[in-house]
Amino acid sequence: MLKKPSIPKGTRDFGPEEVTRRNYIMNIIKQAFSLYGFQPIETPSFENSETLMGKYGDEGDRLIFKILNSGDFLSKVDTEIYTEKDSNKITSHISEKALRYDLTVPFARYVVQHQNEITFPFKRYQIQPVWRADRPQKGRFREFFQCDADVVGSTSLWQEVEFVQLYDDVFNKLNLKGVTIKINNRKILSGIAEVMGAEEQLIDFTVALDKLDKIGEEGVKKEMREKGISENALEKLQPLFSFKGTSEEKLNNLEKMLSTSEVGIMGINEIRFITETISKLGLQTANLEIDVTLARGLNYYTGAIFEVVAPDGVAMGSIGGGGRYDDLTGIFGLKNVSGVGISFGLDRIYLVLEQLNLFPETVSANTKILFINFGEKESLYAMEAISKLRKSQIAAELYPDEAKMGKQMGYADKRNIAFVVLAGEKEMNEKAYTLKNMKTGEQFSLNFDELKTAIK
Amino acid sequence: MLKKPSIPKGTRDFGPEEVTRRNYIMNIIKQAFSLYGFQPIETPSFENSETLMGKYGDEGDRLIFKILNSGDFLSKVDTEIYTEKDSNKITSHISEKALRYDLTVPFARYVVQHQNEITFPFKRYQIQPVWRADRPQKGRFREFFQCDADVVGSTSLWQEVEFVQLYDDVFNKLNLKGVTIKINNRKILSGIAEVMGAEEQLIDFTVALDKLDKIGEEGVKKEMREKGISENALEKLQPLFSFKGTSEEKLNNLEKMLSTSEVGIMGINEIRFITETISKLGLQTANLEIDVTLARGLNYYTGAIFEVVAPDGVAMGSIGGGGRYDDLTGIFGLKNVSGVGISFGLDRIYLVLEQLNLFPETVSANTKILFINFGEKESLYAMEAISKLRKSQIAAELYPDEAKMGKQMGYADKRNIAFVVLAGEKEMNEKAYTLKNMKTGEQFSLNFDELKTAIK
Repeated sequence: MLKKPSIPKGTRDFGPEEVTRRNYIMNIIKQAFSLYGFQPIETPSFENSETLMGKYGDEGDRLIFKILNSGDFLSKVDTEIYTEKDSNKITSHISEKALRYDLTVPFARYVVQHQNEITFPFKRYQIQPVWRADRPQKGRFREFFQCDADVVGSTSLWQEVEFVQLYDDVFNKLNLKGVTIKINNRKILSGIAEVMGAEEQLIDFTVALDKLDKIGEEGVKKEMREKGISENALEKLQPLFSFKGTSEEKLNNLEKMLSTSEVGIMGINEIRFITETISKLGLQTANLEIDVTLARGLNYYTGAIFEVVAPDGVAMGSIGGGGRYDDLTGIFGLKNVSGVGISFGLDRIYLVLEQLNLFPETVSANTKILFINFGEKESLYAMEAISKLRKSQIAAELYPDEAKMGKQMGYADKRNIAFVVLAGEKEMNEKAYTLKNMKTGEQFSLNFDELKTAIK
Repeated sequence: MLKKPSIPKGTRDFGPEEVTRRNYIMNIIKQAFSLYGFQPIETPSFENSETLMGKYGDEGDRLIFKILNSGDFLSKVDTEIYTEKDSNKITSHISEKALRYDLTVPFARYVVQHQNEITFPFKRYQIQPVWRADRPQKGRFREFFQCDADVVGSTSLWQEVEFVQLYDDVFNKLNLKGVTIKINNRKILSGIAEVMGAEEQLIDFTVALDKLDKIGEEGVKKEMREKGISENALEKLQPLFSFKGTSEEKLNNLEKMLSTSEVGIMGINEIRFITETISKLGLQTANLEIDVTLARGLNYYTGAIFEVVAPDGVAMGSIGGGGRYDDLTGIFGLKNVSGVGISFGLDRIYLVLEQLNLFPETVSANTKILFINFGEKESLYAMEAISKLRKSQIAAELYPDEAKMGKQMGYADKRNIAFVVLAGEKEMNEKAYTLKNMKTGEQFSLNFDELKTAIK
């Protein structure tokens, strides 16, 4: 007896219901991306290692899945290097390709490689899997889809406005009402650090501030002290801990706090444009909230920072995020191309919709009607009807074998098929079909047109 | 100056038009799969190596992309093995996962692993990329999509009938009329070998016969002689070289030729059921043709063998194929589960549709209307209209920057956007929009409802 087969840890099989529900979410996102003028691109699952390595920090480099060279890969390894038996050193000699780690770096590579074919500003979306050799845990997988939309080639803040609307639109269409779109700006964080005299510790400072929700005011201060941020600086930070009110009030308070910081004021003006414009245009069901503790991979973002959290009462963390990065394509030699983009967290959105029971019942790729198999003649009669139903976009099946009735009905039942047709010799003679509604148990004798109408 | 980035050989970037066209094909295939009662599943991109290795022959094993273990992978390699410096021997010690090579083996693994959750007969479809370290050449890639539908758990020939209809349906919906669905049966090939007394050389014999189209009768005979097939056997094969006529005539001739072969007669009866049923049910635009030279990976198939070729005049080889395999899941320990399936060749179908100019013009994810950016006030006015258009499912954009008119119009032109709206102060005062049709150059002053109607 063979061992029952399994799949690698951190990966998943998706059955019909899961695929259908995931597609339901992705289709809504895709349609919204299209309506907002984004166009789809796709890049290869693996890239040359040099494209990916060094772009995500040391931790990222470790977590990138490397592909072993084909053929006699060891023949290319120097005896000297081979003798050392050092995994890190040998890797680049036996592996030249690696699986995509996110969609952003491949997108930057795409823009630079195809810069002469692209019309800028370039609005692209991309929905593809990525792979990370992370330790798997609840909600964290080694293979997962990212759903990204980005614009490169314009610094206009109208794009930030549109991304807020896009988030609102998608979550509203998913019937997930009351999400909060948090917004911050890297320039405000820089301004705060400047006013505190902690510019050198900008990263330590924002990493600590980012944890306010989790570890509270005292926790944040403790961590900052440990990182060598002075008491004097912490005092200047104090107003942020009681940072409440409307966007207008928050911005006015920030303005006072950051009055001496040019970059800080710039950040405030940017946010103000976005929040004021959004309040004029209105949102459908989302809330837009300024959150100056929001950092999200700070090194990356240079302007706006976004994060979306599920409605109150759903403990799920962020279900989307993004921001502006002023020099994404610089890593591949194309300077001064500003970009801004957002991402949807498919797996978490799925869990939220499941938890709140928000998947529509009609989301199903299921067969609508099963014809019972009574033998060869009857099956031919059934197949004639089935062909016509399929031409009317009705998913129909013939049970393939002349099995016992109980088995065939059991199949319809387990597959959740709504209708069953029994058509034996009697029905054939009458050019009729006996239709059974599997929910109510009712049976009717119908001609073909009546049958079609009944199940529509 | 950095080197311009590139992608690994045999892989592709897909731009907006290509993605949209590929999705057009895949959506038609998916819809047809659904209408025929197939349900979608998805499996991980990489599997445990033991799941894939040894399933595709030595050649296949070589062409499977292996993923290097994470972390200090060399520490797990014995000094003894390491010292040998043998790429083949070391592979299983430094790599435990491999990229999917096709969708069939992962499907077999899925069925065995989930056998207790599955309702049999199980009709599944799967559309996902696969990876092969093949030498790239025209039309052959290292990453490509497969589109498969299979049923496991029934030996009914009605399934073969349905697959013929499904092929007809999909190619008809793609407007690719006149494809030929070739059908053969492994049992007929076995019967021919039996009658020839060449059972031991079944594979050599079918490999040679499969080349009839390419190398002609004399070429086939030459190859068979080289493989040690006797002149006496070749004589018995002679009728196949003038194998013409209707399905009925072909089957009658075969019946005479194979009258002494039990398995051969079984194969003839199977094909006869399929062709006779199809001729009763009718096909829309495809032709069904018996081709006894068709083999396609003979070791795999046990019953029907299918192959679809493009209409006359299009040199493209097969654009689809499949067949019945009686013991697919046996490799994972689940015996006696018969399967039958077909596959669509996405890349080749794409090339055929392109060559014949069959992509509908409406297949485009493009923005319908661009609003020119005249400044902040005007943009807000534009954005109000844009939001409403998007709610009506019209893809609309604001040019993000207040750039020169020529640049903005140039963007609309290069992006192939059909309509442009000019709305400056005058229009704002009149609550109007100046709509320009980019094709005709005509301009109209319209209110919002007129605008919406005009572009629909």
